Amino acid sequence: MPLTLDQLNAATPAEAAALLDGLYEHSPWVVETAMAQRPFRSLAHLKHACAKAVTEGGLDKQLALIRAHPELAGKAMVSKSLTAESTNEQSKAGLTDCSPAEFAQLQQLNADYNAKFGFPFILAVRGPRGMGLPRAEIIATFKRRLAHPVAYEREECLRNIHRIAEIRLNDKFGVEPTLGHRVWDWQETLAQHSDPGFAEKGQLTVTYLTEAHRACAQHLLKDMREAGFDEVHIDAVGNVVGRYRAAKTSAKTSAMTLMTGSHYDTVRNGGKYDGRLGIYVPIACVAELAAQGRRLPYDLELVAFAEEEGQRYKATFLASGALVGQFDPAWLAQKDADGVAMREAMANSGLRIDDIGKLRRDPTQYLGFVEVHIEQGPVLNELNLPLGIVTSINGSVRYLGEVQGMASHAGTTPMDRRRDAAAAVAELVLFVEKRAAQDGDSVGTVGYLQVPHGSTNVVPGRCQFTLDLRAPTDVQRDALVADVLAELQAIGERRGVRYSLEETVRAAAAPSHPAWQARWERAVDALGVPLHRLPSGAGHDAMKLHELMPQAMLFVRGQNAGISHNPLESSTSDDMQLAVEAFQGLLDQLATDMA
Amino acid sequence: MPLTLDQLNAATPAEAAALLDGLYEHSPWVVETAMAQRPFRSLAHLKHACAKAVTEGGLDKQLALIRAHPELAGKAMVSKSLTAESTNEQSKAGLTDCSPAEFAQLQQLNADYNAKFGFPFILAVRGPRGMGLPRAEIIATFKRRLAHPVAYEREECLRNIHRIAEIRLNDKFGVEPTLGHRVWDWQETLAQHSDPGFAEKGQLTVTYLTEAHRACAQHLLKDMREAGFDEVHIDAVGNVVGRYRAAKTSAKTSAMTLMTGSHYDTVRNGGKYDGRLGIYVPIACVAELAAQGRRLPYDLELVAFAEEEGQRYKATFLASGALVGQFDPAWLAQKDADGVAMREAMANSGLRIDDIGKLRRDPTQYLGFVEVHIEQGPVLNELNLPLGIVTSINGSVRYLGEVQGMASHAGTTPMDRRRDAAAAVAELVLFVEKRAAQDGDSVGTVGYLQVPHGSTNVVPGRCQFTLDLRAPTDVQRDALVADVLAELQAIGERRGVRYSLEETVRAAAAPSHPAWQARWERAVDALGVPLHRLPSGAGHDAMKLHELMPQAMLFVRGQNAGISHNPLESSTSDDMQLAVEAFQGLLDQLATDMA
Repeated sequence: MPLTLDQLNAATPAEAAALLDGLYEHSPWVVETAMAQRPFRSLAHLKHACAKAVTEGGLDKQLALIRAHPELAGKAMVSKSLTAESTNEQSKAGLTDCSPAEFAQLQQLNADYNAKFGFPFILAVRGPRGMGLPRAEIIATFKRRLAHPVAYEREECLRNIHRIAEIRLNDKFGVEPTLGHRVWDWQETLAQHSDPGFAEKGQLTVTYLTEAHRACAQHLLKDMREAGFDEVHIDAVGNVVGRYRAAKTSAKTSAMTLMTGSHYDTVRNGGKYDGRLGIYVPIACVAELAAQGRRLPYDLELVAFAEEEGQRYKATFLASGALVGQFDPAWLAQKDADGVAMREAMANSGLRIDDIGKLRRDPTQYLGFVEVHIEQGPVLNELNLPLGIVTSINGSVRYLGEVQGMASHAGTTPMDRRRDAAAAVAELVLFVEKRAAQDGDSVGTVGYLQVPHGSTNVVPGRCQFTLDLRAPTDVQRDALVADVLAELQAIGERRGVRYSLEETVRAAAAPSHPAWQARWERAVDALGVPLHRLPSGAGHDAMKLHELMPQAMLFVRGQNAGISHNPLESSTSDDMQLAVEAFQGLLDQLATDMA
Repeated sequence: MPLTLDQLNAATPAEAAALLDGLYEHSPWVVETAMAQRPFRSLAHLKHACAKAVTEGGLDKQLALIRAHPELAGKAMVSKSLTAESTNEQSKAGLTDCSPAEFAQLQQLNADYNAKFGFPFILAVRGPRGMGLPRAEIIATFKRRLAHPVAYEREECLRNIHRIAEIRLNDKFGVEPTLGHRVWDWQETLAQHSDPGFAEKGQLTVTYLTEAHRACAQHLLKDMREAGFDEVHIDAVGNVVGRYRAAKTSAKTSAMTLMTGSHYDTVRNGGKYDGRLGIYVPIACVAELAAQGRRLPYDLELVAFAEEEGQRYKATFLASGALVGQFDPAWLAQKDADGVAMREAMANSGLRIDDIGKLRRDPTQYLGFVEVHIEQGPVLNELNLPLGIVTSINGSVRYLGEVQGMASHAGTTPMDRRRDAAAAVAELVLFVEKRAAQDGDSVGTVGYLQVPHGSTNVVPGRCQFTLDLRAPTDVQRDALVADVLAELQAIGERRGVRYSLEETVRAAAAPSHPAWQARWERAVDALGVPLHRLPSGAGHDAMKLHELMPQAMLFVRGQNAGISHNPLESSTSDDMQLAVEAFQGLLDQLATDMA
């Protein structure tokens, strides 16, 4: 009989400890501490309580917890130090079938890792889908993590320990994240389509209107139809648009529509979840509704956007832009790297350019726009939180700059007679860092930094740099920008250097609509997941829809410090399950609000 | 009748003012102030007194002095604002023969310059040799200086005003820097030889054992012979070695030798004076001695070193190195960019590789080594001093480094969760700057700085840099290095970033020998030039000879902020004259010491 939350919540401390025995390897204190947070409202709540206990336990206890774990073993070394749970998990990952060469490699990695960090390498070998990781991936992860700084890697071990505990809890409670698995698998399947040159290397790249891109569209069309969408079509820019009709019993003459969606194109060698998660989470919800024969009191329109990343053509947000009437006809003449004009690519894909203008939505027909997206940042991962509420899509300004000082001999120019362009930019870099940090939720980055033709023995005469400044509101962003530009001017005057600065991007902030943000918050809270609000530093399709209707976004935790635009982008089916449940909760709330 | 210093020193202030009327355009206060420093020991002393008066006059008076000057005029605009002197000077520069296009260009430049700086462009149009600058060079200089920062350009105008005054004083006193002209002209003539690919563009490049390089050696051989050296030959590495024999009446059985010299190779697109000045100053002295039939009580050996810049082969200081027994036979196999091995190049030039070992000098035969060199730095230029005494050739250490942080999304990574490699290096850049400045005469430079594949919206995961740290003594250098490395480590720990560092160069400091430095000081003081001691930040041949014998160097002011390794490298024939006189003074002192 699987354990239930009611049982756990009703148990004495000793009983609770016995019920969750072995959840954290040789470390009963974690469960003991977590139990103080009972009653647990959900398994997610319990999981977070355990993670919180570890976080608050302090460094010594954390290290003891990590060291209580066995080394990653190959077949020949399954030893007494492995608990039955560990043996089972390492077996699922196929680690007990190592070849002698793999075994030797693991032994060496274990030795190197322990020598560097002083604790054993811990990896949730059952992986993000709980099926077990391939040996090659385990070894690659081991190597990669060996390069981490100690403090980061310690946290990464703890996160893996929590993931191991999560899967163990699922087993104990007899819970499978079925919808999460489904979403995970859909994305895995969609990722089979990749552009030539990348597909061969096992890399995912789907750029606008390539063969792989068109295959994705057809694939999405089929997935939406099978899930139960009533109408599905590909629109004039390649968006796959599905509509799940409102209940016919609705009293209103013309049903209002809630729009949702995200993009299915990718960057080059990108991740499987960026964009696509926000397509499949609603598909899973509609599949559930359709299976239950349930209708909502409003239409749900899902748009799988064809273009968000601006990879093949410099036309970022082309797809969501078209829905708000911002398709720029000048883009049609743009050519890709092979000289294929966008107009030609569209014609080859059977898209009707003449109909693009008609894509603009009538805001009076829409309730709003919601988007689920993988965070693409480290915040939720670090906080051990599966979901986050987006407060705003940050406004941003970017500059390309150059400081011009005076190149001079590094040996013969006394320090007080220099006009070092790089030192001036160094001051700016540190100011940007400090000033952005003051706001708490602003970010400022000098990502490109170069002394052109720099040479060891020449005081830099020029230094090129970029500025990327973002904040949740335009007012906050503009104050940040003003301070940074004032400092640059002050640096220039103080150091007798000149500078040039070219604004390359200016995007307005898109704050979440309070009522819609509140719906996400209630939906997340209902899952027993602690609320965490954060701005979105990256742009999203919601930013475009913002111009026509209220919008709000939900973020889903990414693994590996939230890395994105990278094949290491990852998320668990447990987190995807929670995203589906939150989306269902939002749909239900809206239904209630309209009743 | 030309004016004499005695007349000036004996004059009443009113008489003195009258004698030097018009020296500084419409600004009698300069001469009035300078006269307080009488009696003047030399024309150089008077010139410096005037410059000092301007420096100490303060900003308002300096601006008034600059504004008292006419704009640079073309033919059509010779106006009342030009004094007779100015008209004469601008005429010498051929400015009164402007074409209409040149005139229009000058008009525009005058307007742009005045708009930017608020004062007229001032250029000593008679140039470094007093012959007048070509119009094209005047216009190029005008354009270049238009880009300067205001404070620097104001100083540059004042320096040009002093240069104008210098030439006017020469005229008034009926003085021509004949030996300086000769040295200047010799260098101009030697600069006719340049490597293919550069010669066509009017650029000077003479790298080891090219055709141009061999032509230079022959040219130097001839110049030395004509000057009166008794024995001249080209040695086994291509050095041109001349010997001016001691007086035969010397009592000693074997005459001791004073060695001097510098290098005749150049960097690519280099200057005409770097190295070569230290060859022609002694040639001028020997020419004078020979013309007077004078012999010294010691042999003077002049070595025109064939290789100092390490351009064609990575074998910097090959030539002076050979004289101290440091020729590395492994160099012989090195190939240049065209695949020609050094061994082959030497054979083609008729050099006898087998004899290189014999080049090592016996230190017991030598009194010491002295070297004259253009400063290659801004110090003397800024101080309005023609000569400077070198205290030490700085010891240096160089590193190639990289900081590894974590690349992450510039929008989604909060400031407190970043491991920004570039920000870490920015801290280091500013620390190096501050720490080196503390010593007064240390220098520290991050000359190469780059975020590899840096991108506007990515927090830098890596940042590459170089460190170049120099100080007049090894102890001071090592303390600087230790502090910089400790700070790098502290930055790494504070920011959770790793770094790697590879030492690429370590050169010991070569402090000047006190007795020899004192000889240079007495020689400079005897010319009425205020003493200024400074370390040499750049390496010189004297650094190698330092390993066998006492050495000391004399620096000569460079124009254009002392720029070197650049075609803008420049020095006046007046300064070269003083260098020759200082060298003569040193030779005479030594003769007296040995008497």
